[in-house]
Amino acid sequence: MTDWTHEAARLDAEDPLAKWRAEFLLDEGVAYLDGNSLGALPRATPERLQRAIRQEWGEGLIGSWNGAGWIGLPQKIGGMIAPLIGAQAHEVIAADSVSVNLFKLIGAALQMRPGRKVVLSEPGNFPTDLYMIAGQEAQGLAERRLADRSDIGSALDDDVALLLLTHVHYKTGAMYDMAALTKAAHATGALVLWDLSHSVGAVPVDLNGVGADFAVGCGYKYLNGGPGAPAFAWVAQRHHADLRQPLSGWMGHAAPFAFEDDYAPAPGVSQLLCGTPPILGMRALEVGVDLMARIGMEPLVAKSRALSAFTGKVMAACVPELACISPADPAARGSHLSYVHPHAYELCQALIARRVIGDFRAPDALRLGFAPAYVSFADCWRAVSELRAIIDSGDWRRPEFSTRAAVT
Amino acid sequence: MTDWTHEAARLDAEDPLAKWRAEFLLDEGVAYLDGNSLGALPRATPERLQRAIRQEWGEGLIGSWNGAGWIGLPQKIGGMIAPLIGAQAHEVIAADSVSVNLFKLIGAALQMRPGRKVVLSEPGNFPTDLYMIAGQEAQGLAERRLADRSDIGSALDDDVALLLLTHVHYKTGAMYDMAALTKAAHATGALVLWDLSHSVGAVPVDLNGVGADFAVGCGYKYLNGGPGAPAFAWVAQRHHADLRQPLSGWMGHAAPFAFEDDYAPAPGVSQLLCGTPPILGMRALEVGVDLMARIGMEPLVAKSRALSAFTGKVMAACVPELACISPADPAARGSHLSYVHPHAYELCQALIARRVIGDFRAPDALRLGFAPAYVSFADCWRAVSELRAIIDSGDWRRPEFSTRAAVT
Repeated sequence: MTDWTHEAARLDAEDPLAKWRAEFLLDEGVAYLDGNSLGALPRATPERLQRAIRQEWGEGLIGSWNGAGWIGLPQKIGGMIAPLIGAQAHEVIAADSVSVNLFKLIGAALQMRPGRKVVLSEPGNFPTDLYMIAGQEAQGLAERRLADRSDIGSALDDDVALLLLTHVHYKTGAMYDMAALTKAAHATGALVLWDLSHSVGAVPVDLNGVGADFAVGCGYKYLNGGPGAPAFAWVAQRHHADLRQPLSGWMGHAAPFAFEDDYAPAPGVSQLLCGTPPILGMRALEVGVDLMARIGMEPLVAKSRALSAFTGKVMAACVPELACISPADPAARGSHLSYVHPHAYELCQALIARRVIGDFRAPDALRLGFAPAYVSFADCWRAVSELRAIIDSGDWRRPEFSTRAAVT
Repeated sequence: MTDWTHEAARLDAEDPLAKWRAEFLLDEGVAYLDGNSLGALPRATPERLQRAIRQEWGEGLIGSWNGAGWIGLPQKIGGMIAPLIGAQAHEVIAADSVSVNLFKLIGAALQMRPGRKVVLSEPGNFPTDLYMIAGQEAQGLAERRLADRSDIGSALDDDVALLLLTHVHYKTGAMYDMAALTKAAHATGALVLWDLSHSVGAVPVDLNGVGADFAVGCGYKYLNGGPGAPAFAWVAQRHHADLRQPLSGWMGHAAPFAFEDDYAPAPGVSQLLCGTPPILGMRALEVGVDLMARIGMEPLVAKSRALSAFTGKVMAACVPELACISPADPAARGSHLSYVHPHAYELCQALIARRVIGDFRAPDALRLGFAPAYVSFADCWRAVSELRAIIDSGDWRRPEFSTRAAVT
């Protein structure tokens, strides 16, 4: 029988990213496998936020919009995210939430494809992607069409203005072939909007390489920007001249401080700004993105794949009764694995009680996420061995593990 | 000749709110008269944010959505804002930015008044209010109509779905008669949306008392929530059942964690949530709102009026060459005074160099804001006396004071 403890230790000893764990304030007693939902706290963040609060806000006051560079943070952080997703610096902006950014870009796409109203996605996509289409559908501006992933190709026709897909599925971890689907959409005249929430910082993304049109992504998962961090949006340079989005707030105006009555969009992605940017969130996101940029996407991707491959192998060997619904090929999935079980909720709660933190996604999935910057192979082995022990002991049947909380 | 130094000292000595200044981390060397643009830093905020970052995020990790109550912060903070604006606790929610909330409620109003497309406002309203109407106009959903404030009554007809006004004008400080205009709008079947950005925390607002329909407001001015703090939105209870807004994100869903494909709105103002709430910003806003709630609106309003009355009097006596464009009656204006001068920009910069911080609003207005929780009468007198000195010395002509920064 394989000595997995030893194997995990060997892999950790060989891991070129192991040193980066010290850059996070993460209790050594916790195996944190939920960085795909909320990334861990970078060590530099508390001090950086203290400075933003006491010096920039408290002492610099209103002058910090210029003096501390607050006004340029959305563009600056966007530029820092760009190399993680195969974008040019001036094509990315940090702003609002993923949901709000989806609304902007759905609106922009519809405006660029007059006569077409269909926004195509898949059933079971992350809910907010589907709901933001529904919002414009309720306004009479869009028509939502859903097709299973195997039928996306045939559902693309000349009514489709926009194909909106989440690159890595939040539940299964299945990853779309971004190049192939972008090409298929373009062949029918449709635009493509990729939701990179479960991709950025964990899997290879080359937006300009595949010729995509739009993207959005999340700041609080693998980018470690903190709870409810600002999101980002990307628009390919070739669309900048034609870009018009419906959330035309003053910060996206060409001259916000001219206080004109009529809206005139700022050039490029700056138009995607709407209200006043959330500076505390921006400062925290900046720290998280900086860390990812310093580690670099290539080693992050390699480590992500090694962690999920190791965990998949150990789960199959040790907890075979949990069926994996994630693709078997590491190159075809994101940085998490999902296992279904009728009592996945209780198993997840029992794991958390043992300080192994994964998460549950309704109705029956246990997710284990591998944030490559700080998860160790030992963490992964601990998750598997605790899961084995929980099942063997029947521990998960304890009544407190079936109590549902507000956020599950 | 009046000894204004003595008079200011006397007023400060008698000021029942003077003790609250110690609750803010504000350099004694600064006269901060720009709390109407960015409120000062509450003393409790740095420590509260450290706790949110280190304990809630760093240690509690994903579990803090339930464990630290993150998931309920928008409703909790909304409930804390409610008494400041004459609302019921369950009618207010903290979310997104003023701009984004305007978009939601413009959309909601249009949906409640089928057959009417006009959104009426005034020219020179704060730009984002006008631009957010323009956004839905560009989508073909709204028609923007602007009428000077004296003509609002006659511009209300049965094409008007919504009257959208900023209660206190950002530039002049002129305050609308909210009761009269709400009544006039309702008489023509229109709904009313009040932007309280320059009102909340400084002037009396009684939304339910006047029977208004919708309101939005800013978290970073008199509520002291920090740069780019979350904003809030209010919807009168009687509209909750019919409320539908276009930014239908997952956090506004009736069951966000059921991960359903179809959108179903949460009851009441929770539907106004869109993406994941910005938790760091929420925690900072909570501290600022708590301070305002503890002081109470009645003394805040009294102090605001006393400060602006004193400043108005001293300015008229000492700097008569600057014309005041704010209403003379303290009860007819907000908590700031605006003075026009061809070199208002340079005067403002010269004041800032002397650590008297007001602000400039294009093309020619110098604003002096009186955040009643921490501004002293001595601060106001200092602003006037420095302004006198700057004009007398010609100091404002120094070339560095005419250099325009990104944010003016």
